[in-house]
Order: sequence, then C-alpha cells, then structure tokens
Amino acid sequence: MDYLFYQPDTATGDHALNEDEAAHCARVLRKKPGDLIYITDGKGNLFTARLTQVSLSACRFEVIARNTAPQACPFITVAVSPVKHPDRFEWLIEKCTEAGAHRIVPILCQRTQKSQLRTARLQRVAISAMKQSLRPCLPEIAEPIHFNDWINSAEEGRRYICTATGQEPPEWIGKIAKATKITLVIGPEGDFSEEELEFAASRGFEPISLGPHRLRTETAAVAATLFVSALGALNKPKG
Amino acid sequence: MDYLFYQPDTATGDHALNEDEAAHCARVLRKKPGDLIYITDGKGNLFTARLTQVSLSACRFEVIARNTAPQACPFITVAVSPVKHPDRFEWLIEKCTEAGAHRIVPILCQRTQKSQLRTARLQRVAISAMKQSLRPCLPEIAEPIHFNDWINSAEEGRRYICTATGQEPPEWIGKIAKATKITLVIGPEGDFSEEELEFAASRGFEPISLGPHRLRTETAAVAATLFVSALGALNKPKG
Repeated sequence: MDYLFYQPDTATGDHALNEDEAAHCARVLRKKPGDLIYITDGKGNLFTARLTQVSLSACRFEVIARNTAPQACPFITVAVSPVKHPDRFEWLIEKCTEAGAHRIVPILCQRTQKSQLRTARLQRVAISAMKQSLRPCLPEIAEPIHFNDWINSAEEGRRYICTATGQEPPEWIGKIAKATKITLVIGPEGDFSEEELEFAASRGFEPISLGPHRLRTETAAVAATLFVSALGALNKPKG
Repeated sequence: MDYLFYQPDTATGDHALNEDEAAHCARVLRKKPGDLIYITDGKGNLFTARLTQVSLSACRFEVIARNTAPQACPFITVAVSPVKHPDRFEWLIEKCTEAGAHRIVPILCQRTQKSQLRTARLQRVAISAMKQSLRPCLPEIAEPIHFNDWINSAEEGRRYICTATGQEPPEWIGKIAKATKITLVIGPEGDFSEEELEFAASRGFEPISLGPHRLRTETAAVAATLFVSALGALNKPKG
C-alpha cells in the first residue's frame, strides 16, 4: 500500500471517490479501471477495492475486501489550548494525527491567547496526515470549549494534566500499559493557572511532566501523544 | 527568567550582545542600564548579567553569576536523513533542539531525496529554539555525510537505528536510563535499504521501533529525541 484514499461512507455503500481524490487517482497515480486501490473511511476500516471507472471527475470502485484495523493503542483524547500562531496549531493537528490521537479538543484556558481556529482547514490537515501515515483512523476535532466546562464533562479513563512539576516520565509511563482510554491535557504558552491545576486535580486529573526540558504547547501535545501511543500499545501490529 | 540571550563568547570575556540581540533588548524588552538579563553561551552555561550600556546598536553587560547547567540528559546525537521539503527539516531542527538533542547530523542514505540544506539558516533556527526553550545548550549541526562513512565513524555509547521492525519501545526504553551517550539514526521517507540496516547492525547499532504508527522522518527524529531525553534523564531538574 503506497497511497490511501479517504471515503467516509464506503461502508454504507458510497463507492465513488470525491473530486479531488478522483483527480489525484487519474492524473497523478494514473490508475486504470481494474487497478486495486486502498481506501479508509477514517473509522478504523481499511478497504481493498477495484476501480470500475476512472476519469478526472469521477472514479468509482467495488469493494473486494474489508479489514478492520485492530485497536493498536488506547483511545487517546488530547485536550490542548490553542496557540497564537495558526500554523503551529495546524502542525499540532498533523503530528497528533500521525502519532495516534483519536480526538483533539481545543480548550480555552485562563492564559490562552486569542487565536483564530479554522476548523474546516484543521479537518483537511487531519485527513491529509491520516492518509500520509496510512492510519485508517481520522481524529475528531471538537469545537473549542472552556477549560472548566471541559474538565467537568471529560470522559472516564486515565486522565493526565501536563505541567512542569508533575510526576516524572519514568513514574507515570509504567501505568499506562493497560489503559484503554487516556486523556491528556496540555496548557497554553503561559501554562495553566494554579486555580486550573487545582480544579483538574479535584476532578481526578494526575499532574505529569514530559521530561526535563521546557516544551512549547504544540510540542508538548505531540510528545504526550507519542509517549502514550508508543508505550500504551495494547497490541502491536508490525510494519 | 523570561528571555534568554545568546552570546557564544561570554565565558572568554566578550560582554556585548550582537546587533540583533541589542536591538531586541533595547526596543522590545525596553531594558535599561542596571537591569538584569540572562545569557547563555550555548555550551551549557547560564550567566546572570547586569546591563552597563543599552542602545539599539550596542548593549554591554557585566557578568554577576555563572551557572553551569547540570547535564540533565545523556548526550544525544541524532543522525537523520534530510527530507525533501526544507521547511520540514527546519522544523526538525527546532523540535530536536527543544527536545534536548546535542548534535544533529544530516546523513545521506541510498533513498535520501535530493534537498537543499541551508546550514546557516538551520543554525539560526537552532539558536532561536534554544532561546525559546530556555535551554543553555546549542546543538551542533554537522555537515552532511554519507551513511556508511558516518556509521564507520560514529561514537561509542548506546546506538539505535529506527526501523518499523525493530524492538518495541517497552523493550528498549528501559535500557537507556543510565546511558551517558545515545545515538539515534533515522532514515529517509523511503526507509533504509536492507543493506544499510545490515551494515549498521554489523557495527553495533540496535534496531528499534518508535511505536505502532508510521511516522514521517522528521516526526520520528523528534519522537526518538523526546523519548530518550524524557526517559534517559540522568538527574531531573524541576521547573
């Protein structure tokens, strides 16, 4: 598999690529009717399909096999403060998708700097990162929500809030191996307020550190996701 | 400390900021003679200094204290194939600096795609990332070198080559805790050739994996650096 197409409704019978994907399939990959392609619906399914029609505006296919990817990692929710520069947040979306996040929630903290979140653009970045990494799972990008509201509504599972004074990595990393749901909370450039840290602690969020160096918000989000997905793997597909 | 200046020759008596830093000090930070500033020489030293002269073109200072940062992490060398897009390699430099790399070596592998490495620009990116992360250590950025030549000349210590079929993170991560020198080798987008992997193995490089997901070259370099610096910490300064 060298290229992964995205068609969210493949499982329910929509067997045509969208216009951009069709153009790519016909013009760049120069596929012909009868060729095999790989398609994901972003929901954990990987389809092997045979092209039945190929043109710049329309590519149709029939599904010949469906594989549901094993859940390699715990379900990872990354709740993270937006950052000032939109391109850094786009980068965060790209890398967290690649690293295995399942849901990304922009949380508005006391020290969050105002920034413009272009949700449609972030969705496109996530789709592109999913295709690039051949990972059949598209993370959900939630609407921004205030920190306290989100803390109050956060799901069960292991819940960690990242802060310089938290538990060191060797202490907390051993505990994630069997967790099926992990939530990671990452603050703004100016860090969480004491009040926010206390509120999160009162709701069962454990403070953790990501190592000895000060990391930018977007780096911390990616670091946390990488740690959890590399070390929390439930079963480990190769290749 | 909210801002870190860079003056590579502070220890040997050069007590003036360069022009860019002087302009920033005077115009943006609006410092006055008598104010305290923090300076690093990029060699692990952090100086507390008092400004004696402040203007847009020249800021002079006297050193009032010198702290040599404890070696928080093993000495980390990241040998990594250049990638096609220069901005992705710049990003790699920024994030590996932030994550704690001490030396970054561009290695030319069989499948490395041709790319333009602008060493002067990469140096500036590293300096900016060092200042931003308040880390008093500027990684060396080596000249590009061919894979085999570099493998033959690589330093002692723990040496890892990253590949999808290597040891899983839980297997290798426990071994790095007491290493004082760690070398990480990351291949091009098309991965190492079998020949390269065999050659590295014959020279004592252990194959390791970075988790269940396929990572781009630049993400893999940053992931490996983050793992090693978070989990290999020799002593762990807080804050």
